[in-house]
Amino acid sequence: MEINELAAAGEAKAGLFTRWWGWLKALPGKFNTKVVKVVKGTIKLGRDDPRRVTHSLKVALALTLVSLLYYWRALFDGFGVAGIWAVLTVVVVFEFTVGATLSKSLNRGFATLLAGALGVGAQHLASLFGEKGEPIVLGIFVFLLAAASTFSRFFPRIKARYDYGVLIFILTFSMVTISGYRVEELLEMAHERLLTIIIGGGTCMIISVFLCPVWAGEDLHKLIASNIEKLANCLEGFGGEYFQTPKDGNCGMVPKNEDSFLQGYKSVLNSKTTEESLANFAAWEPGHGRFKFRHPWKQYLKIGALARQCAYQIETLNGHINSNVQVPPEFLQIIQDSCRTMSIETGKALKALAIAIKTMKEPKHACEHLEKSKTAVKDLKTALKAASLENADILAIVPAVAVASILVEIVKGAEKISKSVHELSELAHFKEVVEPTVSPEKPQLLHRGSVNPVLLDGESAHVIITVEEILNMAPKGPEPSELV
Amino acid sequence: MEINELAAAGEAKAGLFTRWWGWLKALPGKFNTKVVKVVKGTIKLGRDDPRRVTHSLKVALALTLVSLLYYWRALFDGFGVAGIWAVLTVVVVFEFTVGATLSKSLNRGFATLLAGALGVGAQHLASLFGEKGEPIVLGIFVFLLAAASTFSRFFPRIKARYDYGVLIFILTFSMVTISGYRVEELLEMAHERLLTIIIGGGTCMIISVFLCPVWAGEDLHKLIASNIEKLANCLEGFGGEYFQTPKDGNCGMVPKNEDSFLQGYKSVLNSKTTEESLANFAAWEPGHGRFKFRHPWKQYLKIGALARQCAYQIETLNGHINSNVQVPPEFLQIIQDSCRTMSIETGKALKALAIAIKTMKEPKHACEHLEKSKTAVKDLKTALKAASLENADILAIVPAVAVASILVEIVKGAEKISKSVHELSELAHFKEVVEPTVSPEKPQLLHRGSVNPVLLDGESAHVIITVEEILNMAPKGPEPSELV
Repeated sequence: MEINELAAAGEAKAGLFTRWWGWLKALPGKFNTKVVKVVKGTIKLGRDDPRRVTHSLKVALALTLVSLLYYWRALFDGFGVAGIWAVLTVVVVFEFTVGATLSKSLNRGFATLLAGALGVGAQHLASLFGEKGEPIVLGIFVFLLAAASTFSRFFPRIKARYDYGVLIFILTFSMVTISGYRVEELLEMAHERLLTIIIGGGTCMIISVFLCPVWAGEDLHKLIASNIEKLANCLEGFGGEYFQTPKDGNCGMVPKNEDSFLQGYKSVLNSKTTEESLANFAAWEPGHGRFKFRHPWKQYLKIGALARQCAYQIETLNGHINSNVQVPPEFLQIIQDSCRTMSIETGKALKALAIAIKTMKEPKHACEHLEKSKTAVKDLKTALKAASLENADILAIVPAVAVASILVEIVKGAEKISKSVHELSELAHFKEVVEPTVSPEKPQLLHRGSVNPVLLDGESAHVIITVEEILNMAPKGPEPSELV
Repeated sequence: MEINELAAAGEAKAGLFTRWWGWLKALPGKFNTKVVKVVKGTIKLGRDDPRRVTHSLKVALALTLVSLLYYWRALFDGFGVAGIWAVLTVVVVFEFTVGATLSKSLNRGFATLLAGALGVGAQHLASLFGEKGEPIVLGIFVFLLAAASTFSRFFPRIKARYDYGVLIFILTFSMVTISGYRVEELLEMAHERLLTIIIGGGTCMIISVFLCPVWAGEDLHKLIASNIEKLANCLEGFGGEYFQTPKDGNCGMVPKNEDSFLQGYKSVLNSKTTEESLANFAAWEPGHGRFKFRHPWKQYLKIGALARQCAYQIETLNGHINSNVQVPPEFLQIIQDSCRTMSIETGKALKALAIAIKTMKEPKHACEHLEKSKTAVKDLKTALKAASLENADILAIVPAVAVASILVEIVKGAEKISKSVHELSELAHFKEVVEPTVSPEKPQLLHRGSVNPVLLDGESAHVIITVEEILNMAPKGPEPSELV
């Protein structure tokens, strides 16, 4: 009996041990898969935007420089404990873009200066109330100022530009008023703090501006151009896929495959916040590269809003495609050509606008394509007016009619985008495009109906490829129609 | 001559004086208008959301409490200079919502603990390398850790939840490693800092939770409900305005006035960022009011995304209304009734869903309205199939067809929203709705075609008014159909 019990206990122990051992043996494997996952994620993050890696190294460099400055005793004795504020400044102030770093550094510097001065005054005033009255008066000061400043952070304008400054203002004011030092000590402390903040903020600003700078303005510029390009890709792809010539008895109106270019516009739908914060930071940046100080960043927000408007319409269009309804061939025949032209030419116009923004040249060639799509709208109207559908099944043509109608709205939206890009071109003094002298027949711009709406398939394919090649080239590549 | 010159000089002086005087006299006026503008803006900000005022007072209270704690010398002697960290913690940690404050406080506390421990270890390790090697080894440590931590902030998950923690981690680690104190001193310093952070963070957390708390979770809950309500208002208003019965020869399809309810949905288009940050903060909050800890906040994001999808379609619809095209009356007659029913009933369904979310009761009554609008879709299809338009001008009916087609898509979108609200109802254990026993004829839910699609105008108006009254009532008011 005892032996049995012992054996059972031993078996149970062995079972427990085996289980534990199994868990322990599996642990390195699990750990490994986890590590591999994290490493893969890290590599992907770095590869998606290598500036993330340089940014991390830049922050580390700034921090190490300021730390060593503090560590060396000679300097340590000069600054006192306040030296630690230089480290703190670097950590909280160094942001990804130059604009954000400058905004935070300057906010921090000026807020410290202002709050320090006010704080010294407040303490002096409070000291007049005697030893017992002083903490009460100081308490009232801190309360009032903190409440007012915190409330001011709800003003949208202050929130957007000076949020961090107000925070530092409250912080410094309360620290100075309550520190309980005499005024001479206070002034010395304020001087020390300001100096360390200048050292910390200055290090950040210099490294941020001169070492692989990431300009918020340039990012905004590229973001807007790439958003318009995404819409263009989507429209061009849509025109080619959706209104294909019926060959195998399949009557068009059904996309062959769920192409990724048809999904690219999705990111445009929610880009508002990013655009606004980039425009905000860009306003803090000095002139850089092709952008002067006071570049019209607000105009980019206007273009971005119009592009988003267009993306909403494409989203609705997409809903209609996915409904997968067959359209009677005789009706498809009527609208097919003009719808395809509308879609593809609007796409080309948007692509020309995107290239114009990217290369900062006048968006002349967009007008040509826009004119073609406007002619296609007219053709569509003429065709619909002339069409006699005596035995037509109205229900069957509903999706196609809706698609055509939304496409017409998209053409209108593209016109608005084109107008605002032209405004940008004037505001930012984009370079004039020199017409190639070899072509004797200039396209008649802004002359309605003069451009042939019929689209040759081979030519269009050629143009698309050309444009895409240009987009992959250096930003100052030739304009697409110079090649056409 | 001399007299003349003097007189001229005097006149010139007088002229300058007059101008200066005028400018000086105008100054108070200008200043006054500016002040009046700022005061008006402030009052509006406070009236729009009175919680802003209470928040400002709460921050001021927390700061004053911690400041006085620091000011009283007895405590000052206890804490040493580290007491200033309590003030700093309050200023940077106190956020508008409870969730954000908790998230920042906890992040700050744990990051300080972890970085402090690591920092002590790193310093001990570095001290083994002798006096000359120490700063170099420490520099390498700071560089590596700062680079790795900064890069980790690019991971979306870390960015969303632990961004502030990583910042404080870098800060504390560099401060501890470079401080150059001996380990005993370091431990004492770390102990002091942690204590002051706990005092600062604790004050914030207690005031934030117990004094007029602003819960991120509740805000998210209300935001999603109000977004759905805005879509509902828009659809109901649209149905009433756009498909009006032609009386004065005006063939409908043109809105009488640019009503504000038709614009309310615009804010839904760009609510993604707000929703996501609220959901993020809500996850940090303990159970409060009707919401338990681990309330399914993610489901709200799902509903929000579907509502946004619906808003995109309404935006496209809006573009078509503004085109201002006249529709032939004979065609309008065919689609008018079913389109109006689709629009109004979908609006009512969405309103019922919004009320269900607000009151946290099962969204049973939405199904009824959804069934009605689905029946209207069928009716529309039947009507279009039966319609013979021998002499129809297809071009003229294009906008109306597009509107109808988009409305059908909106009905589909509303179905998706309804499904995801039902999921939320299950996940969050919404209360069951008890049917009123006085009504002998229960509406047959989920039985297609059994509900009369024809809408009596007087009745519908009555229902709208009732629903709006309920929306203005306390959140636990009766369900609309209990009153109908």
